[in-house]
Order: sequence, then structure tokens, then C-alpha cells
Amino acid sequence: MSETSERATIPARKGRAVRLSAGQAIEIVNTHGTQVVDTWAFNAEDLTEFLSNEHMRATLGRLWPAEGDALITNRRRPILVMERDTSPGRHDTLIAACDDYRYGLLGCTEYHDNCTDNLFAAMRSIGLRIDDCPSPLNLWMNIPVAPDGSTGWGEPLSRPGDIVVLRAQMDCVVAMSACPQDILPINGAARAPTEAHYRVLPVEA
Amino acid sequence: MSETSERATIPARKGRAVRLSAGQAIEIVNTHGTQVVDTWAFNAEDLTEFLSNEHMRATLGRLWPAEGDALITNRRRPILVMERDTSPGRHDTLIAACDDYRYGLLGCTEYHDNCTDNLFAAMRSIGLRIDDCPSPLNLWMNIPVAPDGSTGWGEPLSRPGDIVVLRAQMDCVVAMSACPQDILPINGAARAPTEAHYRVLPVEA
Repeated sequence: MSETSERATIPARKGRAVRLSAGQAIEIVNTHGTQVVDTWAFNAEDLTEFLSNEHMRATLGRLWPAEGDALITNRRRPILVMERDTSPGRHDTLIAACDDYRYGLLGCTEYHDNCTDNLFAAMRSIGLRIDDCPSPLNLWMNIPVAPDGSTGWGEPLSRPGDIVVLRAQMDCVVAMSACPQDILPINGAARAPTEAHYRVLPVEA
Repeated sequence: MSETSERATIPARKGRAVRLSAGQAIEIVNTHGTQVVDTWAFNAEDLTEFLSNEHMRATLGRLWPAEGDALITNRRRPILVMERDTSPGRHDTLIAACDDYRYGLLGCTEYHDNCTDNLFAAMRSIGLRIDDCPSPLNLWMNIPVAPDGSTGWGEPLSRPGDIVVLRAQMDCVVAMSACPQDILPINGAARAPTEAHYRVLPVEA
């Protein structure tokens, strides 16, 4: 694919997955400014190799990646590079994808949309099946960490239209979920999950 | 089992796994004071449920557990409680178990003992097989985190004979690896991995 694709929607509270060839990139847009997008990446030829936060942190020496950093798999290889980040650069690698168990503990008595099921559904929608939900790169999620190790649930520091560009270092599948969390303020004080957008960028000349 | 077991050795650079019934506990001893022990826990009835750092951090609101905290699985259930910790209480949940890929990146050209293979071998030694190495609770590992999210490779703050007691909340398997890291200073400035010890404590009357 040599041309930039049209901008596609990640509907509020839902997920999408897209295949990237090595050299292509995905631009993910925080359209309304305060939406966390849980993001995963899998080796297209072997879905058991994936972006792994605990391996990435050891390589980066930082809790979350910044412009220019490689995103690292559980086999210690770069799968994506964070080529561009127009936001203040605050992301999260500490917190698991939300799931139905989590919303149960938060008091929900009925099914709640969640990033874990969104990942499985997004992968199925392009013909892929995975058995487990890896720890996601939570784009724009703001989890403050104090020196004593305590963490908080911050609001995003991002602004409407902020983008992150992730360039593929191998043929891979990128999955994204517009996080449906509406109980904690991680998607902004209004606790109102919104849509986000993405488009595929071509291999650079 | 109603009696305390004899103290057993985790040989330097190697791993061990032990079954606990609900209510039993394991006491893990930092015998020489500066040895990191990578620790995992699996539901004995379903090894796909295990202690999961990314789920535990969301529940605890802290990067690592302290005395009295429940250790949480990927199904958001307590599997162990950190009943006692005589050390200064600094542990790590951020860094993946070391593996052969990691030592390759650190310059090793031949096989290096590593916590990932130690986990697989320890499980096999009690008749169990797992396919993946979950992110470990790294007892006594000291990874300083700065406000900007950058991390370091600290030396342990623990002392000879410090113990951690983990009490089982369900029938489970606990695996431990005396981390063979001898390139970075995480096992102390001498970079000399040592043995550690453990014993099983009975159900409390």
C-alpha cells in the first residue's frame, strides 16, 4: 500500500484492528482530546510475539515510550517505533486493560463494554484469534506515580487532535480500543468515553 | 499439611516451585541479603489464572505490594496475601523476568541462566507445563522511578535473613527463581547471585 488511507473511526467504547506491513505506520488521533486508546501490537506471522510492557520498560528505562523510542516485544525485538507524538507525551504501561471482572469490582451488576473484549472482537473481525489479552500501551492515559510507588487515576493531558504515529518494524497487527471506562476519570472529568480515529500511512520514500 | 516444612534451598541462579493448599503460606528468605527472587503464583486448578502485575497494580494503587496486601490474578481475584515483610518493603513489578534474549542484548554470546527458563524448569520438576512466563513479582528488586517516569537499576535495600510470607488464598503453585543477573547491579554491587531459601508454613489454627 503506497497511499495514506482514509481516516477511520474507532467508535466510542469499541475496538478496531488493522494490519500493517513493515514500514507502514498508523496515525492514531485523540479526536476529542481526552480519550484513552488501549493499544496492542502483534507479530503478523506469530501472534505469540507481541508488544510487552514489562520487556519494553527494561529496554527503555522509562515507564512509557516517547518520540523516537522503539516499542519492544516479549522476544525483545522492536515491533513499532513511536515516530511522532504531538501530545504532552504522557502515556501508561502500568494498568491492565479493563475487563468485565474489573467493572464488577467497580459496582456494575450488568455487562459493561471493556477493552479486553474489544481486543478479542477486533482481532476476530480481521480473522484472527488470540487467547490472552496482553498488557496494553494505554495511549494518553495519565497514571501519576509518587516516589513511594503509589499511583493515581489522572485525567489525560492531551488535547483535541493530538496524534501519535507508530511505524511498523515488522509485518504486524495493531489493535486499538477507545476505552469505555466511565466510572474513573481516566477519560476526562466528564467520564464520557468518545470516539477516536486512525489512518494508515504509507512506507516512507 | 499441618506442620512447618524444613527450610529448602533455591540454589543460586536456579528456580523451584511448590504447591500450597489454601491457607498454607510460603516464607521466602533473602538469606544473604541482596538476592532478588522472581516469584510467580498460579491457580493450581487452572494455570491460565496467575498473579498478574498489571491487574494487581490497578487494585492496589501502588507499584508493588506491602504487608497486608492481596496479590491479584488476571481474573482480579486474590491468590496470595503478603502477610509479613521484614525488609524495607521495596519490591518490583515493572521488569520482565530475564531471558536468553535479554542476556544476548547485554552482550552475552553463550547461554546464560535466566529466570524465564528457571520458571519453566521449576514447573516441569513438579509435573506442570506452562507456555508463557508471566510478569514476575520481583521480591527485593529495587527499581527507582523518577517523576518523569524514568527508571533505574538499584541495589536491594534488604538485609541478610529478611523474609516475606505469602499466604495462599486458593490452592496454588508458587514458583521462585534466584535471579542469575550478574551484569546489572540488581543483586547487589558485587553482581554475585546467591542462593535463597524457603519453607512452607501450615494453615493457621
